[in-house]
Amino acid sequence: MFQQVSLFATQAEESEPNEKLSRVYLSEPELPKMLTKVPGPLSSRMKSELNEMGGMGGAVNFFINVEASRGNYLVDADDNMLLDGFGHIASLPLGYNHPKLMEASQSPQWQSASVHRSALGMFPPTELLQWTRDVLLSESMAPRTTDGTEWMVQPMLCGSSANENVYKAACMAYRGRQREKQGLDANAFSSEEEESCMVNQAPGSPQLSILSFAGGFHGRTFGALSTTHSKAIHKLDVPSFDWPTAPFPELKYPLSENIDANFAEEERCIAAVQDVLEARLGTSPVAAVIVEPVQAEGGDNHASAHFFRRLREVTAEAGVAMVVDEVQTGVAASGHMWAHEAWDLPSAPDFVSFSKKAQIGGYYYQPKWHPAGSYRVFNTWMGDPAKLLALETVLKVVNEDDLILNAKTTGAHLLEGMESLQAVFPNLLSRARGIGTICAIDLPDSATRDRVHANMRDRGVLIGLCGEKSLRLRPSLIFTHRHAEHLLSVMEDCVREV
Amino acid sequence: MFQQVSLFATQAEESEPNEKLSRVYLSEPELPKMLTKVPGPLSSRMKSELNEMGGMGGAVNFFINVEASRGNYLVDADDNMLLDGFGHIASLPLGYNHPKLMEASQSPQWQSASVHRSALGMFPPTELLQWTRDVLLSESMAPRTTDGTEWMVQPMLCGSSANENVYKAACMAYRGRQREKQGLDANAFSSEEEESCMVNQAPGSPQLSILSFAGGFHGRTFGALSTTHSKAIHKLDVPSFDWPTAPFPELKYPLSENIDANFAEEERCIAAVQDVLEARLGTSPVAAVIVEPVQAEGGDNHASAHFFRRLREVTAEAGVAMVVDEVQTGVAASGHMWAHEAWDLPSAPDFVSFSKKAQIGGYYYQPKWHPAGSYRVFNTWMGDPAKLLALETVLKVVNEDDLILNAKTTGAHLLEGMESLQAVFPNLLSRARGIGTICAIDLPDSATRDRVHANMRDRGVLIGLCGEKSLRLRPSLIFTHRHAEHLLSVMEDCVREV
Repeated sequence: MFQQVSLFATQAEESEPNEKLSRVYLSEPELPKMLTKVPGPLSSRMKSELNEMGGMGGAVNFFINVEASRGNYLVDADDNMLLDGFGHIASLPLGYNHPKLMEASQSPQWQSASVHRSALGMFPPTELLQWTRDVLLSESMAPRTTDGTEWMVQPMLCGSSANENVYKAACMAYRGRQREKQGLDANAFSSEEEESCMVNQAPGSPQLSILSFAGGFHGRTFGALSTTHSKAIHKLDVPSFDWPTAPFPELKYPLSENIDANFAEEERCIAAVQDVLEARLGTSPVAAVIVEPVQAEGGDNHASAHFFRRLREVTAEAGVAMVVDEVQTGVAASGHMWAHEAWDLPSAPDFVSFSKKAQIGGYYYQPKWHPAGSYRVFNTWMGDPAKLLALETVLKVVNEDDLILNAKTTGAHLLEGMESLQAVFPNLLSRARGIGTICAIDLPDSATRDRVHANMRDRGVLIGLCGEKSLRLRPSLIFTHRHAEHLLSVMEDCVREV
Repeated sequence: MFQQVSLFATQAEESEPNEKLSRVYLSEPELPKMLTKVPGPLSSRMKSELNEMGGMGGAVNFFINVEASRGNYLVDADDNMLLDGFGHIASLPLGYNHPKLMEASQSPQWQSASVHRSALGMFPPTELLQWTRDVLLSESMAPRTTDGTEWMVQPMLCGSSANENVYKAACMAYRGRQREKQGLDANAFSSEEEESCMVNQAPGSPQLSILSFAGGFHGRTFGALSTTHSKAIHKLDVPSFDWPTAPFPELKYPLSENIDANFAEEERCIAAVQDVLEARLGTSPVAAVIVEPVQAEGGDNHASAHFFRRLREVTAEAGVAMVVDEVQTGVAASGHMWAHEAWDLPSAPDFVSFSKKAQIGGYYYQPKWHPAGSYRVFNTWMGDPAKLLALETVLKVVNEDDLILNAKTTGAHLLEGMESLQAVFPNLLSRARGIGTICAIDLPDSATRDRVHANMRDRGVLIGLCGEKSLRLRPSLIFTHRHAEHLLSVMEDCVREV
């Protein structure tokens, strides 16, 4: 029934749109080279040994020989060479052993920053000023705003700590505004507040909440986890704040044939947000709404720019912070530096959190959300100088090698390819979707999905899973047309065999 | 009234007990050299500029010229040279530009680890096995146990994420044991649990709690912050779990004259712990009790080994995890590798969390607390390979240069010196206390304390503050007798001037 001629070039015979990347893939293997199934015997044995010492969450897929890996190709412990379309859960910016990163790591500045883990909040190195201005707040990195907002930025260590501190800052600002309405200073704490907070009680520890979306993922520490709703296994047995959720749009595909239904679905979700904001006012008012541009762990669920513009309107009207969690979507992968730049928002988000490909975590915020006083958003390290230097080089390569454009064109090719595949295998594949290289496609059920995933891996193409039955792609930013071709041809073979 | 002859040598004329450290301080200045007050004009201007971009918590003291700093002496942006007795809030293991760390940072292995921020939980580098076995679980690093417990270990990024994940693991184990008592598997989740947790409700998000002590500090993310009770400013305006506290012993000094009163005080606190454990059983059972060996942020509050042995007994009897938070006390500073090794506990703690001087965060745990199943304690990075390599070198130097012994002897000298000072200035100084170099002393009030602190800093000796009116010392592990002498002599001068 299925056509037997491959839709995709299996050899890298196509011309490469981005010639600047050739220096990277010249050092790559031509194609995957598989000696064993994955995980191979050595990885499996190492995993058993690691499990006896704790096992890192019991989640190890296989071990990587980093030194031998190049570009988009990883070499595993069993000497298999795989094309990496998952990029360390979307956190690998420039593939393996990128020459510019390897070169930068030999500079005295890098070595000093990697040896001196300064307490950036109290005793920062003199370079911090330059790193903040010319890396974090540079034109290349800071989100472009439509309303002239000048960002402030707070580095952190990871996505969870970024979001946790965003929630804190939003709650502090919320309470500060309440005090200001009473004619007080934003941080004119009452003695009752000072005493009650010390034993975890209101009014010092206020009944405020953070609104998140069903299917969202924002991290796994207690605050972040209370806003995570992707899979039960992330949350089971862990105490949670009684914070509310709203439904996230469940779009019908193909989008072009479901315009009215999807519009109605998005309006339903916006109305639900408004309902929660109002319902919570009397009990635990919502200080912030957090949303991912694409719900990644939850199944690569997309919404339209219209939905996010509506969310911006609704939150602005209610005086509630709109937090865009760009931990997985940020840093060029979406075909924009930040996915939310594609939405044409009426005003900038209040907070934008980042991590993963940025190598460091943190968040941008509008100055009006800056906590009054000192030592409120604070911790010992407040980030990591070494990762700021890594980000500096990543940004340089993103600019020099046009990697935003590369993500856009490679992503378009991946999405077209998956759309072609689902036209050929309509009973097996559905909902091909993507922005930039953040692409996904659904199988009929999780068992079939898992089989395709494992078979692709055994043939040397590593991609990721998400949601109940989705395959997701999260390659690094140097993943090009030719890599996409090979990934698609292996996907085709594995789907064909189902 | 006060004697005018200094108690301490102002020049480094004493013999040095630890000759191995000479290679470090040969490169140091002899004494501080001050050109301006601290912060100087350049630091102040840089701080203003940084504040416009966010300001890192509004807490910057001054900027450091890391490249020019050596050993225990930092050079600030205004070219002042200060003796560092605070060590980046207790997180500086080997001073500035330690030759062994600088050498290690030039190795290809270090460069690779600092370039490749692997997702350690899913796709670790092949070296992870060796790092786990020979660094984290090495004889040098892993806490010595009295009961034959073989540790498991989970790296994390910082102290907060270590404690957050300890709490999660403790709650998971608590619920697992409840299921096992019903004849089920530990992770045989009911469909009601799977559904309810997705909207932050019981039974999937259970009503469990973590017991902490008044005055304790365990981090600033939402779960960790709910167990932090050091200062109101850490907690105000942030929602909190309704988790309980127990009083921490308020010991009377000098200890040798208050043995009975202190014994009674500690028993009172243990009884309060027992009361909370019982009282919460019907509402939100306590899954873990967390305690610092020395309550640092809360004011350097000590308790006796007897207190901690009693806490171990009480928690073991109740089947509740005893978590020792060694984030600030761990890695040699106490004169033991881990402060709790001095307690002669009847059985090992269930969890020991670490960070700061370890450069990486994480926790040791007894295998019985290992979460059933996979992906439960998990996140993208699960630590940082680069910091594991830094820790490897720190451990090597700790062993080669006898730095545990150095902390013990330097600490003893610091404590004796402060006891001498308080004998001379009984109306100004009190409660000199310490284990290893983790020393503190009290002034009559916070204004006087702050003045002494600022004057010491202006004379080139940086130390820290904690609690309401305490000065605390947190030097790096290469702080020796001669540095202690100078610190004490400047402290004496500044106290004399009050």
